[in-house]
Amino acid sequence: MSKGITPKSEDHNKWYTDVITKAELADYGPVKGTMVIKPYGFAIWELVKDEFDRQFKATGHSNAYFPLFIPKSFLAKEADHVEGFAKECAIVTHSRLMTDEDNTIQVDPSSKLEEEIIVRPTSETVIWHMYKKWINSYRDLPILINQWANVVRWEMRTRLFLRTSEFLWQEGHTAHSNKDEAVEETLKILDIYKNVSHNHLAMPVLTGRKTNAEKFAGAVDTYCIEAMMGDKRALQAGTSHYLGQNFAKAFDVKFQTENNNEEYVFASSWGVSTRLIGAIIMVHGDDSGLRLPPSIAPTQVVVVPFFKNDDELKKIKDYIDPYIHQLSNMGIRVLLDDRPKMSPGFKFNEWELKGAPTRLEIGFKEIENNTITVFRRDTKQKENISIDSVITYTSNLLDNIQDNMFVQANDFMNKNIFSVSTYDEFKNIINKGGFIRCGWDGSDESEKKIKEETKATIRCIPFDEKPDNLNCIFTGKPAKHEVIFAKAY
Amino acid sequence: MSKGITPKSEDHNKWYTDVITKAELADYGPVKGTMVIKPYGFAIWELVKDEFDRQFKATGHSNAYFPLFIPKSFLAKEADHVEGFAKECAIVTHSRLMTDEDNTIQVDPSSKLEEEIIVRPTSETVIWHMYKKWINSYRDLPILINQWANVVRWEMRTRLFLRTSEFLWQEGHTAHSNKDEAVEETLKILDIYKNVSHNHLAMPVLTGRKTNAEKFAGAVDTYCIEAMMGDKRALQAGTSHYLGQNFAKAFDVKFQTENNNEEYVFASSWGVSTRLIGAIIMVHGDDSGLRLPPSIAPTQVVVVPFFKNDDELKKIKDYIDPYIHQLSNMGIRVLLDDRPKMSPGFKFNEWELKGAPTRLEIGFKEIENNTITVFRRDTKQKENISIDSVITYTSNLLDNIQDNMFVQANDFMNKNIFSVSTYDEFKNIINKGGFIRCGWDGSDESEKKIKEETKATIRCIPFDEKPDNLNCIFTGKPAKHEVIFAKAY
Repeated sequence: MSKGITPKSEDHNKWYTDVITKAELADYGPVKGTMVIKPYGFAIWELVKDEFDRQFKATGHSNAYFPLFIPKSFLAKEADHVEGFAKECAIVTHSRLMTDEDNTIQVDPSSKLEEEIIVRPTSETVIWHMYKKWINSYRDLPILINQWANVVRWEMRTRLFLRTSEFLWQEGHTAHSNKDEAVEETLKILDIYKNVSHNHLAMPVLTGRKTNAEKFAGAVDTYCIEAMMGDKRALQAGTSHYLGQNFAKAFDVKFQTENNNEEYVFASSWGVSTRLIGAIIMVHGDDSGLRLPPSIAPTQVVVVPFFKNDDELKKIKDYIDPYIHQLSNMGIRVLLDDRPKMSPGFKFNEWELKGAPTRLEIGFKEIENNTITVFRRDTKQKENISIDSVITYTSNLLDNIQDNMFVQANDFMNKNIFSVSTYDEFKNIINKGGFIRCGWDGSDESEKKIKEETKATIRCIPFDEKPDNLNCIFTGKPAKHEVIFAKAY
Repeated sequence: MSKGITPKSEDHNKWYTDVITKAELADYGPVKGTMVIKPYGFAIWELVKDEFDRQFKATGHSNAYFPLFIPKSFLAKEADHVEGFAKECAIVTHSRLMTDEDNTIQVDPSSKLEEEIIVRPTSETVIWHMYKKWINSYRDLPILINQWANVVRWEMRTRLFLRTSEFLWQEGHTAHSNKDEAVEETLKILDIYKNVSHNHLAMPVLTGRKTNAEKFAGAVDTYCIEAMMGDKRALQAGTSHYLGQNFAKAFDVKFQTENNNEEYVFASSWGVSTRLIGAIIMVHGDDSGLRLPPSIAPTQVVVVPFFKNDDELKKIKDYIDPYIHQLSNMGIRVLLDDRPKMSPGFKFNEWELKGAPTRLEIGFKEIENNTITVFRRDTKQKENISIDSVITYTSNLLDNIQDNMFVQANDFMNKNIFSVSTYDEFKNIINKGGFIRCGWDGSDESEKKIKEETKATIRCIPFDEKPDNLNCIFTGKPAKHEVIFAKAY
């Protein structure tokens, strides 16, 4: 147990905040609801971002940048959309400050804008306004654009990374000449989301479709990846929307087909955000702090030397430097922590807190015996190995940890997905924690009542649902869908 | 001369906008003053950004992210700072929209914020608010943080990339325990700016210090890189500020020194922005459009085949594909433009417009003779070479173009920096275009009057100034500094 961290089992929320604060991932900004992502947290985000970016580009997408500011009237053009975002907007109304007679800074009333401006909560409206200018014919399609940006959704109950007024994300916005292609795109992206979650974040996710009540404001269908956190609650980790022709109609974006007809353009949009950092913390963290999968760990191998003075440090460096260079040349992110006046024990705690997947320890005992001690963060096991094998061993170990962390998280998730046969059982499990896979009659009303009574929501209608012979857990009627229920962040 | 582009010599402003529009670099956003960076423009920005990012990280800097929103009161804390930014702020005053009786969307008056929020024009204030929380002792220093972000400065006269209400940039904010280290940091960054400009953007820059009138609002000293555009006007391409203890005092950020004293922290801040894309266009562009230095060209080599049908295309591909793969494996960004139903001539124009540094042309004549035709965009020369030598030739050619474009731009700049001995001569040259290197008496008043009379400003006091024996070009008094005057963007 690391100093100063509330144990996870004792108070999950406090543990979460402690990890973020003590591992220096993020801090609270001065405006309520805002967040500062500190360098270590941002380094993780950069690795996550780079992997998504690589996969988007490999599938033909380009990055672009659209304005932060959206005219108020745009938001109103798609009815569901404005409904979904109206209550959480930052609204710009003026463009100048002035100094009043008391020499205090005031908003200059004469700078009032003709039309108020919305700070983007998402960019469908401004992007479809531009797409109207860019799309004339089928030859202009598809458009496959992504942007990395900040968005703002006013939040009262802040939780770092999970729920903040401003967050960083990517938002893809694609335009297509037919429905099939747009749906295919929507699902292709969901597949990338799942793939990066599994293979890089070591985070198992369930995939499926959202119910009408839970889908994106303006979508025909919303698909999602849902993950189970360490407290058995669900987190929506990414969404991909098939938008049909909704935004094309709202912004009058038609194209000339190959047969010289006119048709509205079909669309998708999709996003993942810095919320994923919160997911990583909660899926993998333990009482000692963060545990990072090697793929997204800013420091994959930390080297901690035991030394009392510069002379001793020099001897250790002579011993280890060639191996450090070799690991580094292989593309492994390795760091020698030779900070003076800090005990190795202190450094051990700090790097366990920060979740570095492996640690190499070297003192004179290791040098005498031509060995090195290797610590793995996932299982906290230590092993003393021959120094000659350190390169292969460490490199294999990183792969092994990456795989093991996925297996651990996957076992945990599968162990905590339950089938139930009565609503009492349902409530009991929702209270204790876990996902429930059961039948639902497909009505908004049952969904709403279950939410009111238990706080559980339908996380998704899984792609592999088997609704036949199931009954709705609430009404007992024949199930329309098999769904996943859980309390969610 | 490419279709639809105004010749540069005829109307430089219109030429500039034409290049941006026709090469699909950017477009105007719906809110006045905002800009959309289109995929091709953004791909250039990504290459520029990646190079800066690499160099910042190599010199010990980390990225982080601070909030977009700044409390109004923060801006007022540093007197010069608020003076500098008060007149161009986007101010958030409300947080909700509502539907009124006419079913139109209105700002909900009940959502008025207690304190208005400023959308960051730059982040010194919010960052120094955080640094107060993070800095206690000399052990916490230095802090070397950079962020890539959007900022907003209300603009009435929009010019794409050069002057927009929102733009993308990086802003570095460092904190140090002493003046020397902070000044050293300020200059180290200026050196990176110069280095990337010269070696990657192929854009020669003059370096020096800004006058008091031109320095950053809140800085002790502002250092800059200044470039000469194709119309001989100056563009401030990057600035690095030594902030002294100004922001530390405004935000009460003290630290405990090694000797157990208390002192205010010393600071630097520095930035380059998407304005650099505008500079690249204006330094290198010609009547055919953009010319991109290979280092920042999204497509370094475009391959244009001459074919009439799929069969012919297949034969050409069989011939060229192995070489394309080889170039690609060497890290060269190569693209085969095999779009059907488009003439090679059309593609030539398009890629010249988009500034691809080299073009490989292949028809059956080339295949028969085992050759390939190579076109270089910088000089528009064509050469027919043996196919066996295409890899070495192209790879060397890219280096050669990179160097040549710098030499061309540098010659142009040097040819257009003038010495003058009278104020009449000064006015004459400022009117015709060019930089003037001359004496200045150091007074705000002369500087102001020259600006009023000629629109020329002091771009910088160059590091290699030699003010001895010079007189002020305006007052005739002994010069305090040798300076560079020019009309600027």
